[in-house]
Amino acid sequence: MSELENSEQPAAAFSSELKGATNGGQDSCESPDNMKDVSLRFDLAAVYVSDAQHNRNITFDASPPSVRLYLIYNHWMLHVLVYVFILVDLALALFEEPALIPLPVWATSMIELICLVAFAVRLAHFAKVVPRRIFLRDPKNICIIVIITLCLLDMIIYGALKVSGNYAVRWSRVLRPLLLVNVTEGRQLRRAFRSIRNALPQILVLFFLFMFSVLIFSLMALKLMGKRNLETIEGAPYFTNYLDIVFDLYVLVTTANSPDIMMPAYNYSSFFALFFILYIVINTYTFMSVFLAVVYNNYKKYLKEEVRQLVRAKRQKMCHAFSLLKEGGEEPVVSKAHWNRLVRLVQPDITNAHRELLWNVSDHHNRGHIGKVAFVQLADLLNIQVITLKSRAHPLHTWIPAIYESAVSKLICRMVRHRMFVYLYDAIILVNAVFIGLDEEDPVVSSAEWFFLTLYVLEILLKLYTFEPRTFFARHHFWNWFDTIIIVSALLATVINAALKSSGGYTSRQILDIVFILRVLRLIRVVDSIQRFRAIINTLIKIGPLMLTFGQLILVVYYIFAMVGMELFKGKVQFFSADSPDPAREYCGNALLKDTLFARNNYCKNNFNDVVSSFVLLLELTVVNQWHDILRDVTHVSARIFFVLFHIVVVIIIMNIFVAFILEAFIIEYIVEKNDLQTSLEKKIEELNLCVEQDHLDGNLVDAMETQDNDMGPADTPSTKPTIMFKISSKRYSTMDGLLQRMFETGTDLSAEVIADTSEDMNFSNPSFSPA
Amino acid sequence: MSELENSEQPAAAFSSELKGATNGGQDSCESPDNMKDVSLRFDLAAVYVSDAQHNRNITFDASPPSVRLYLIYNHWMLHVLVYVFILVDLALALFEEPALIPLPVWATSMIELICLVAFAVRLAHFAKVVPRRIFLRDPKNICIIVIITLCLLDMIIYGALKVSGNYAVRWSRVLRPLLLVNVTEGRQLRRAFRSIRNALPQILVLFFLFMFSVLIFSLMALKLMGKRNLETIEGAPYFTNYLDIVFDLYVLVTTANSPDIMMPAYNYSSFFALFFILYIVINTYTFMSVFLAVVYNNYKKYLKEEVRQLVRAKRQKMCHAFSLLKEGGEEPVVSKAHWNRLVRLVQPDITNAHRELLWNVSDHHNRGHIGKVAFVQLADLLNIQVITLKSRAHPLHTWIPAIYESAVSKLICRMVRHRMFVYLYDAIILVNAVFIGLDEEDPVVSSAEWFFLTLYVLEILLKLYTFEPRTFFARHHFWNWFDTIIIVSALLATVINAALKSSGGYTSRQILDIVFILRVLRLIRVVDSIQRFRAIINTLIKIGPLMLTFGQLILVVYYIFAMVGMELFKGKVQFFSADSPDPAREYCGNALLKDTLFARNNYCKNNFNDVVSSFVLLLELTVVNQWHDILRDVTHVSARIFFVLFHIVVVIIIMNIFVAFILEAFIIEYIVEKNDLQTSLEKKIEELNLCVEQDHLDGNLVDAMETQDNDMGPADTPSTKPTIMFKISSKRYSTMDGLLQRMFETGTDLSAEVIADTSEDMNFSNPSFSPA
Repeated sequence: MSELENSEQPAAAFSSELKGATNGGQDSCESPDNMKDVSLRFDLAAVYVSDAQHNRNITFDASPPSVRLYLIYNHWMLHVLVYVFILVDLALALFEEPALIPLPVWATSMIELICLVAFAVRLAHFAKVVPRRIFLRDPKNICIIVIITLCLLDMIIYGALKVSGNYAVRWSRVLRPLLLVNVTEGRQLRRAFRSIRNALPQILVLFFLFMFSVLIFSLMALKLMGKRNLETIEGAPYFTNYLDIVFDLYVLVTTANSPDIMMPAYNYSSFFALFFILYIVINTYTFMSVFLAVVYNNYKKYLKEEVRQLVRAKRQKMCHAFSLLKEGGEEPVVSKAHWNRLVRLVQPDITNAHRELLWNVSDHHNRGHIGKVAFVQLADLLNIQVITLKSRAHPLHTWIPAIYESAVSKLICRMVRHRMFVYLYDAIILVNAVFIGLDEEDPVVSSAEWFFLTLYVLEILLKLYTFEPRTFFARHHFWNWFDTIIIVSALLATVINAALKSSGGYTSRQILDIVFILRVLRLIRVVDSIQRFRAIINTLIKIGPLMLTFGQLILVVYYIFAMVGMELFKGKVQFFSADSPDPAREYCGNALLKDTLFARNNYCKNNFNDVVSSFVLLLELTVVNQWHDILRDVTHVSARIFFVLFHIVVVIIIMNIFVAFILEAFIIEYIVEKNDLQTSLEKKIEELNLCVEQDHLDGNLVDAMETQDNDMGPADTPSTKPTIMFKISSKRYSTMDGLLQRMFETGTDLSAEVIADTSEDMNFSNPSFSPA
Repeated sequence: MSELENSEQPAAAFSSELKGATNGGQDSCESPDNMKDVSLRFDLAAVYVSDAQHNRNITFDASPPSVRLYLIYNHWMLHVLVYVFILVDLALALFEEPALIPLPVWATSMIELICLVAFAVRLAHFAKVVPRRIFLRDPKNICIIVIITLCLLDMIIYGALKVSGNYAVRWSRVLRPLLLVNVTEGRQLRRAFRSIRNALPQILVLFFLFMFSVLIFSLMALKLMGKRNLETIEGAPYFTNYLDIVFDLYVLVTTANSPDIMMPAYNYSSFFALFFILYIVINTYTFMSVFLAVVYNNYKKYLKEEVRQLVRAKRQKMCHAFSLLKEGGEEPVVSKAHWNRLVRLVQPDITNAHRELLWNVSDHHNRGHIGKVAFVQLADLLNIQVITLKSRAHPLHTWIPAIYESAVSKLICRMVRHRMFVYLYDAIILVNAVFIGLDEEDPVVSSAEWFFLTLYVLEILLKLYTFEPRTFFARHHFWNWFDTIIIVSALLATVINAALKSSGGYTSRQILDIVFILRVLRLIRVVDSIQRFRAIINTLIKIGPLMLTFGQLILVVYYIFAMVGMELFKGKVQFFSADSPDPAREYCGNALLKDTLFARNNYCKNNFNDVVSSFVLLLELTVVNQWHDILRDVTHVSARIFFVLFHIVVVIIIMNIFVAFILEAFIIEYIVEKNDLQTSLEKKIEELNLCVEQDHLDGNLVDAMETQDNDMGPADTPSTKPTIMFKISSKRYSTMDGLLQRMFETGTDLSAEVIADTSEDMNFSNPSFSPA
């Protein structure tokens, strides 16, 4: 909400800056009169481009000191620092009452105070960057101020109450995760919450209808079975209390108590099975699917609108940058020199070759300058990750050419490059898998382990011999890195373990665990050899980083529920380790739990006694199974409200959004071809004969980085090819926005529409912006 | 497959018929020379139109006797008869060993023989209709022949073995549900199976990857926890056998054994929770969502292609009909007279007014004849359900006008029509709900029941007084019918119950059950008063009939698994009723089950001892919870294969298709506006000032039929309006094809493309047809 509303501001800020720098005038941007002004102009343009590239929507004051402060504000170190402070603040729950590792109250309070100060400083910094009017209109800033104030207040009250010996609750702890949502960096998270908020009305209507259905079925169950004197397995009366029936049938929707809840009635008469079948078909299958449909549909619809606005804001920022740099009369253009200077400012680490390539793509006709439409593309072009491959000769080739060029050496290289080499090692891995499965205490098996380790090390060495090492370890060669790290760690861990064993006969369980995990992880590599598996794996890897937003979403919700749960239920259940002689172990230290399923199933560790246990418990509730058992015996019946609320929020809403996201992302990955911009870049690369061979790369799904045997082709035949090669690897989206944009740009005429939009109002005096 | 391949045949058949009737010649269709020929021509055209209307794709022989046989073949009575025979055949499982109601073998065999004869006769009839070459090329005919032969063979072998006293298995029973798939009428079901088959390769690849992940995790679990001497709650060793781990972790994917499977490791060390969390996130959440994505995507893609072919085949049939009836020179047309005759042949029960309306829509410009494009629309126009509302005066108005027109009478009518009347009865229903919840043996409550019944009867009488009875009970007034039936049945049942009670003091439990169910059902009506609920309910009702296909799909799969399961597992577990003194009751009559969870939870009735129990058990397995318990204790470990197979087929594939269908249908219902054709019809109705008021009908979701207060408007003011009104009620799709077509026509240029397609090859000599 706030970002989108604010994004109309840059234009105003920009024009005010222009006035300030050149004392007004329409033609001011065409005739800069001193070097400092030009430099400022470029700095400002670079900030706009960078903001467009990273989809930042902060309305900063365009005066030079503010711009400098803004650049500092956006420094990645500060972003990291903010998240570190948030993490520390959240992690305090580990040390506060009820604590996993108890620390004195003054210690945790001090740390919290430091965190709060850090947030306040960060906010003050932001206030310096942003015009005051906008700062105060932005709800997220208000939120942070309120959170900090409440936290301080709570700390003081808590301290005072504790000192005077009263009972006190740290209620402000539930507010902590909200910081994650309201910091400037939490854009994705805010968007996720907004999307939930927008879907809420429809979800609520559906939920009421669903509850109506549950209530009607419960009434029917009461009337049909309540008078038949049936009993549950535990001997309790079956279906006699209306509210209990409602709860039981609600649980049945989650399938957690199926078929137990049905058995008494079913045993009495087979006809009653019909009642439950009907119930499950209507409520579990149909309604739950409709929930998914509503969430999925709203999610798509809402995000589409958000992305449209994002794209619009991005183009607008690029247009600002363009107006700052434009030259020429009726059709303004940007010269190559200016463009180069700008790109170097925006991305200092860009290689010259890469920059040239981008210029070539922008300037189709080699005119030496580009117009507005081509200029606006820059932000997207910079987002396409182009890998510059420099073909280098192998170091051994330089050092000992005689030996490296010998027949034997060439034979080795040919062997390693051969397909059979891959198959051979796949076979070895499979045999290895069998050996891992065997008992490792058998001497044959443990010596075989050494044999396999040697084989793997040999493989890496051979590859390093054949391929140029710097190419082999290029940043995008995921599986090479994976292999090497796993093998080297396994080697180290195995050696340490063997050394410990031979020295004192003592085996560290932890090191052995690590050895085992590394051994098993090695097997994963087989997947990469099978083309069709690789396609799916790559899609999953691509979606992976984007799931971080969901991780944060879940974290926020879990944290709030954990804090509330700990205050409500801490200490109700005790966990005793298996060798404890305490008789209370039998009933989890709570006499109420004697002879219940909860105690019998050894669920004592499912409690709210510390934040880690709480999180595990909440995860179990998310998985849903047995949740009625987990909660039934713990506390008073009214606690059900807490658990049902959790179920509605997490399982019905958030998990459905998760499924909706996977569904959409996966379908897009399967369906969508590369978007146009990317293709034009690729075309250019091909035109310039700068691309690597693409034999085995089947366009859509297989990422270039996994086909090793083709990748290092250039090293082999350096004479026939140019020494610099490009490859596009933008299939891995660095930001959520990237995927989202691609999700919704495809199949719609979104970008065309936006271009039309922005080229209409050329002077940007009053960009009309519809709020979400 | 077969239908689509065959659909290119009508053209050929048609031309051969032309030759047979008129001894060849190009201009034969322009100059029919005798009445019989013209009549034949109309019959044939009517058959084509009817086939197009119902999406039938049978290639029949176009000779007059064949056409007559074909008309008989398509008679609805024969369709019903076929399904009755299939049902009887399937129901035989109730009476055969292991039987719910045992019948002698000779009796069931006789019934089965009759059914088989019926299927053979039906097939022979089909063979007469269809050219021999096509008949034998059609896999579904071959299937039926094979099934009938195998069933006969099995009956003979079984009889012989039984007579000679040997052990015999009725293995052919698994083939029975395949008849449902292969009869001509099972088009939707075949399509569902084809869509599954097409998705299978992708699903299998994903499944292998998923299994690979499970295997890797299992290996890790074995290595990490196998040596730690942990124990499950039942005291068994924990995670020591690889295959057991694989199975346990597979079950964890279904969440059925969560959190039990985790507890021993978690109790040992909290760190192990990480392992399970990772496992659940990757396998349960991510992989299962990806399964849904793959199924959903394939389902959509494949159905789109099918619908495209369906639409093409439909247009082609309409073009055949057109060529049969066309007149005129260079631009052939069909005259109104011919068109009228055709429509009356196709749909004899159509009203004149309705037919005129359709003609007006087709013939925009009132030229008295229509061209090909307008003619082709006919099939779709006929599928739009137009309700002809004749505004009639209330019978009381005719009989006793003086009283009915009196001030009191008018006041009553105004009251009943008022919004408050609806609200009043909603309030009454809610109060009634409370009374239903109370103990019905309380005399106050039971007399209150009489009071409420009287109120409801009064409501219906008042409405009948106000509204014209025939309009009130029109076919499309769902809620009026619902109310009346529920109230009248409740009245009857309550009276019978009271009579029984007062006569002998005896209360029939069955009648009481019915009374209770009817009372509770009455409450559902409240939903209809709330606009937003009504929208969802209507969508569900609309999707409802289409779910029948899924019902059949599930039936086929369940039946096959039930038959196999009964042969494998019958009699392993016995159920004893609660008052049985037999000590074997404690362990379900199977000594192996002593002291197991299965027996303790009273699961004895979950067995394969008869077909009803089997179906209930399979439903429990579909719901998934506790399925490992249900199967673990029953039989040998190898039985797991049966259950895992069931899980893969039903839960992973079919349930996902179900979710995909709901998802798609619901989204379409929310998004899609009425399609163009329908809108043009509506426009025409409006143009002709023949439509009823649409004040409260908000276009997309609310079906006209539920808004009673507007519906009967015409009866009130007959003078100012024409006496015939039309209303489109095609929102309820009579066929799956209708919804599917709408699903995929919208947003694509499908129909345009098809029209372009068919108008290119105007003479249809060789329609090019791409196989699916």
